[in-house]
Amino acid sequence: MSSQKYAIGLDFGTESGRAVLVDVADGREVATAIHAYGDGVIDEVLPGTDVGLPHDFALQNPADYIEVLRVTIPAVLSKAGVDAQDVIGLGTDFTACTMLPVDGEGTPLCQRPEWRDNPYAWVKIWKHHAAQPEANRLNEIAEERGEGWLQRYGGKISSEWMFPKIWETLNKAPDVYAAADRYLEAADWIVLQMTGQERRNSCTAGYKAIWHKRDGYPDDEFFAALDPRLRDVVDAKLSRQIYPLGQRADGLTPAMADLTGLRTGTAVSIGNVDAHVSVPAAAVVEPGRMVIIMGTSNCHMVLGTEEHLVPGMCGVVEDGIIPGFFGYEAGQSCVGDHFAWFVKNCAPAAYQEEAEARGIDLHQLLEEKAALQVPGEHGLLALDWWNGNRSVLVDVDLTGMLLGATLSTRAEDMYRALIEATAYGTRTIIDTFEENGVAVNEIVACGGLPERNKLLMQIYADVTGREIRVSASQQTPALGSAMFGAVAAGRAAGGYDTIFEAVPHMARLKDEVYRPIAEHRAVYDQIYAEYVRLHDYFGRGENDVMKRLKTLKARVQGPVGAPE
Amino acid sequence: MSSQKYAIGLDFGTESGRAVLVDVADGREVATAIHAYGDGVIDEVLPGTDVGLPHDFALQNPADYIEVLRVTIPAVLSKAGVDAQDVIGLGTDFTACTMLPVDGEGTPLCQRPEWRDNPYAWVKIWKHHAAQPEANRLNEIAEERGEGWLQRYGGKISSEWMFPKIWETLNKAPDVYAAADRYLEAADWIVLQMTGQERRNSCTAGYKAIWHKRDGYPDDEFFAALDPRLRDVVDAKLSRQIYPLGQRADGLTPAMADLTGLRTGTAVSIGNVDAHVSVPAAAVVEPGRMVIIMGTSNCHMVLGTEEHLVPGMCGVVEDGIIPGFFGYEAGQSCVGDHFAWFVKNCAPAAYQEEAEARGIDLHQLLEEKAALQVPGEHGLLALDWWNGNRSVLVDVDLTGMLLGATLSTRAEDMYRALIEATAYGTRTIIDTFEENGVAVNEIVACGGLPERNKLLMQIYADVTGREIRVSASQQTPALGSAMFGAVAAGRAAGGYDTIFEAVPHMARLKDEVYRPIAEHRAVYDQIYAEYVRLHDYFGRGENDVMKRLKTLKARVQGPVGAPE
Repeated sequence: MSSQKYAIGLDFGTESGRAVLVDVADGREVATAIHAYGDGVIDEVLPGTDVGLPHDFALQNPADYIEVLRVTIPAVLSKAGVDAQDVIGLGTDFTACTMLPVDGEGTPLCQRPEWRDNPYAWVKIWKHHAAQPEANRLNEIAEERGEGWLQRYGGKISSEWMFPKIWETLNKAPDVYAAADRYLEAADWIVLQMTGQERRNSCTAGYKAIWHKRDGYPDDEFFAALDPRLRDVVDAKLSRQIYPLGQRADGLTPAMADLTGLRTGTAVSIGNVDAHVSVPAAAVVEPGRMVIIMGTSNCHMVLGTEEHLVPGMCGVVEDGIIPGFFGYEAGQSCVGDHFAWFVKNCAPAAYQEEAEARGIDLHQLLEEKAALQVPGEHGLLALDWWNGNRSVLVDVDLTGMLLGATLSTRAEDMYRALIEATAYGTRTIIDTFEENGVAVNEIVACGGLPERNKLLMQIYADVTGREIRVSASQQTPALGSAMFGAVAAGRAAGGYDTIFEAVPHMARLKDEVYRPIAEHRAVYDQIYAEYVRLHDYFGRGENDVMKRLKTLKARVQGPVGAPE
Repeated sequence: MSSQKYAIGLDFGTESGRAVLVDVADGREVATAIHAYGDGVIDEVLPGTDVGLPHDFALQNPADYIEVLRVTIPAVLSKAGVDAQDVIGLGTDFTACTMLPVDGEGTPLCQRPEWRDNPYAWVKIWKHHAAQPEANRLNEIAEERGEGWLQRYGGKISSEWMFPKIWETLNKAPDVYAAADRYLEAADWIVLQMTGQERRNSCTAGYKAIWHKRDGYPDDEFFAALDPRLRDVVDAKLSRQIYPLGQRADGLTPAMADLTGLRTGTAVSIGNVDAHVSVPAAAVVEPGRMVIIMGTSNCHMVLGTEEHLVPGMCGVVEDGIIPGFFGYEAGQSCVGDHFAWFVKNCAPAAYQEEAEARGIDLHQLLEEKAALQVPGEHGLLALDWWNGNRSVLVDVDLTGMLLGATLSTRAEDMYRALIEATAYGTRTIIDTFEENGVAVNEIVACGGLPERNKLLMQIYADVTGREIRVSASQQTPALGSAMFGAVAAGRAAGGYDTIFEAVPHMARLKDEVYRPIAEHRAVYDQIYAEYVRLHDYFGRGENDVMKRLKTLKARVQGPVGAPE
C-alpha cells in the first residue's frame, strides 16, 4: 500500500457517465474513463418494448448507471495502475431533477417485469417536460395560497422539478404512483445502490423538491390543495430526513466492491448535482465569488451568509452548495446554444469555405473576425432570449431580438452581438444579486466555453466589470465529486475532514486572469443601459409582443397550418 | 412609308442607358438596345485626370448620355427593320436629381478644358451624397423660418436634391458656381441637346427643386438666409419657366438627326423621371390606383385631385406625374436590398449547397421554403429599416430589428419575415395616405421583384388588403417614355393627343391578379398592429436606442477604434 491516496469522482451526465481518478494530495486528475449509456436518452420507444413515448418525454434506464460503475471504475484503476487499497473515497454527482420510483428494496419499478412496459415506471430525467400542466397548476395554487416558499424560487416552480413530475405520474399512471414505495433523485439512488443507505442530499432536496432546512417541505395542506391524494406525498413517497453535503453516506457494500474492484467499506459521500459540485472544484468555498458554468447554457452559483429572497433566481438553499452557507443559483437558458444556432442557421457559405480552407471551425473564424472590433463598433444590440429567459424574468415565452442591423452588418457582427447579449444577461443576474444583498466581487468560470472562446471571456469581464478566472480542470463536476469523496474518507484515512480543507489542495485555477478594460467598460455601460431598457420593455409587461406572436404561432400551426 | 408608327423611349439609368422601340398602336416593345456608360459612376478618379474624389461623391460624364443616343437608336431601328420615317416621337426619362452646370451654349462645364479637372464641373448623380451638411443646414433654416413648402416633402429636403447640390458647389468651388450659366437636371439637358430648347419639366422641378405650380420656388429671402450669394439662384442659375409633362419640347435638330439616324423634326417630349414615367406605362392615369416600382428599393406613386399635405412622404407635385393631377410619391429605401443582404450575409452553407445542387439561386430556394408556411407560423417580426426609413418617418438613422427568434428559427423564416416587414412598411404608407385624404384602392406593381418573387406579391396583397396587378412590361420607364414620345407627336402624326388617349392602347397589365386571402389578412392584421406599435416606439422618439447606438458606433470607430 503506497502513501499516495486517491479519490474517484463519478459524474452522471445526460448521455454518459464518467469516472475521474484524482490524487488527493494535489488534485491531479490521474485517469478518466467515460461510458455512454446503452439506452441513452429514451424519448421515442421504451427499450425492449414497442411502447411509444409521448412528445416531451425524456427517460433513462437506471441499469445504465450501474453499468457506468462496472465499466469506468476498473478502467481508471487499470489506466492509472493504482491499487484499490489506495482509493480512499468516492463521490458522485448527477443531473437533476432526475428521479425514479422504487420499491421497498430500492429496486426501480421499471426493473420489475410487471411495470417494464409503463413509461412512468422509468427514470424521468431533468429535461422530461411532460409535467408542464402540473407545474402550471402547482404555481397557480401556490400563488393563490400565498405560499412564502415560492419566492425562494424566483416565483415559479419548474416543470422539471420533483413535485410536478410526481404529480404527472399520479395523474397519468396512478397505479405506478401507488406501487412506488418511494421516489428518489437518481443522485440519491446511486448512493443507495453503492452503500445500501438512503441518504437524501440537501442540494436536490432544496433546489428541486422545495425543501428548506428550517421550514422543511410545503405543508400537507398545500399538497392536499393540489390533489387530496397528494396530502401525504412527503411522508409516503419521500422522506423528511435530509443530509447536508460533505458527509459520508456510508461505506461501499461487498456487492459493489465486487462490481467495481474497489474494497468493501470505501467511503462514499452524500450525492450531489453536477453544477453545484463544481463550485468547490472551482476553488470557491466563500461568499463574493460567483462560479459560472458556461456551456450550452449558463449556470451561476454564489454563496451567502444570510438568506435573501432575490427575485427571479432559480433557488436559494441552505447547505445547498457548500455546508454552512446559503447557496444561490441563477441561470441563462441559452448561451453556447445561441452560437451553435447562429453557426448552423446564419453563417454564410463564404465563411464556411474560408474556415475549411484554413482548417478551423466556424466558431473560431467568427470569433477571430469579431475580435478585431472594439465594443460598440457593430452598432447592434440583442436580447439573449432565443430559448426564453430563466433569470431574472423566469419566462420561457420570451424570444430573441436583434436591433441595429444595416446593409453593412456582417455575420461576425451578429455573432459578437449574441456573445455580448449573453454577457448582458449575466450582468443582469449579478446586478440583481447585489441589489438584494448578495455580493458578487469576482467570477470563476468553468465548463466548455471558457476554454474555447477567449473573446467571450474578455467581453464578460468588460461587461460585468469583474475579474474572471478559469478553473484549471475541464471536468470540474467529477473533480468536485472526488473532493467530496476525499472528505467522506476523512483526514484519518488520508483525505480531508471538510471541503474547506480539501479546496486549497485539490482545486486549482489557471494563471490567466481576464481583467475589465476601462475603455471597453465605459462603452459597455452605455450599451448595457440600452439592454436593460429593452429587457424591461419586452420582459416586464410593457409590450408583450413576444408572447402574442408565440400564441399566434401556436394557433396558426393548428387548422390554419393545414395545406390550402 | 408604312402605316405602322413607332415611338422610341430612352431610359437613362445609373450604369447604362437603353432605347426601346415601341409600336404606337399596341405598345408592343419591338426592339431594345442597351449601352453601358463608358465612365460608369465616377466615384474614385475623374476620367482622364489624376484628380481623386472625396468620399460620398458620385458623378457622371454627360458625353456618355450622347453616346447612348448615338449607339442605341440606330441599333433598335436596325434590329426592328423599321424606317426612321415611321418613328414619330421620342421620349426620355432620367434618374433624378442628376444635375450639371452648363455654359451659355448648354455645354457642360466639365467639357471645357479649363474646368475638366474640377469635380464640381461634372454631373452629380442622384446618389452623390456629399451635400449632406448643406441639406441639414437648409432644413434647419427652413424650419426656423416656418417655410410652408417643407411639409410637401415630408418635412425634410434630401441631400440628393437640387439646392443642396448647388449650395455644395458654391461652398466648395465658388468659381464653378460663378462660371455656370445655368444648372440643369440631366433630364432637361438631354432634351436641350436633342431639340436645342431648354424645357424644364414639372416633375424634377417639383420633386427635386421645391417648385410649386401655384407658389413657384421658395422666395429669394429664403435663399438669402442660406447664403447671401444664393439670393438670386433661381433667376441666375435656374428658370421660372416650367413645362408640364406630356408636352412636345420641340423637334429633333439636324445634328441630332445625323447622330441618331432619325429624321429632323421628330417630336421630342418634355423630359421625365424613371419612376414617374412608369405610372402611365403601368396603365395608371387616375386616382386610387397606386403604382409601386419594386426593386432594390420601393417607390410608391399615386394620383389625387386635391393637394393634401401627407406627413412623411417624398413629395406632392401638381402635374408631377400625370398632367392635371397631383402626383404623390413615397418610398422605402431598402426592399430588394434587404433580401440581397440576407442572402449574402445570412444564408447558411447548407442552403447554398442545396441551391447549387438543384440549379436554382438562393433567392428561389428561400422563397420556395418560405412559401410552405402560413402567415404567423415563424413567429418573427422585423422592422424594415436596414437602410433607414424614407416614408413615413423620413429618418436615415433608424436601423433594422428582428424579434421573435428561437433556437428553431431557420433562414427561410427570417427571409419571409423580411419580406413581410417591407409589406408592413408599404401598408404604413398606404394607411398614411388614406388617413390624409388620398385614396389607395388597388396596387399595380412594376420593376424587377414582381417578376421574380410571387410569394412576395401574395404577401403584399395579404398585408395591404389590396388587389395587386403587375405591369406587362419589364421596362416600364422606357415604355412610359415612348408613350410620351407618341403624345409629343400627336394624333395627326399617328400618335395620341394626350397620355390618357395613349394608355388604353400602349400600356398593358398581366392577366394574373394577386388577391388578398381572407384568413391570411386576418393574421397579418394582428401582426401589423404589433409592427405599428414597434414602428412608433422605435421610430417616433419613445426609445431612440437605434440613434444612440449609431452615434456610439461613429464615436468608437474614431480614436477608440485604433489597434490597442
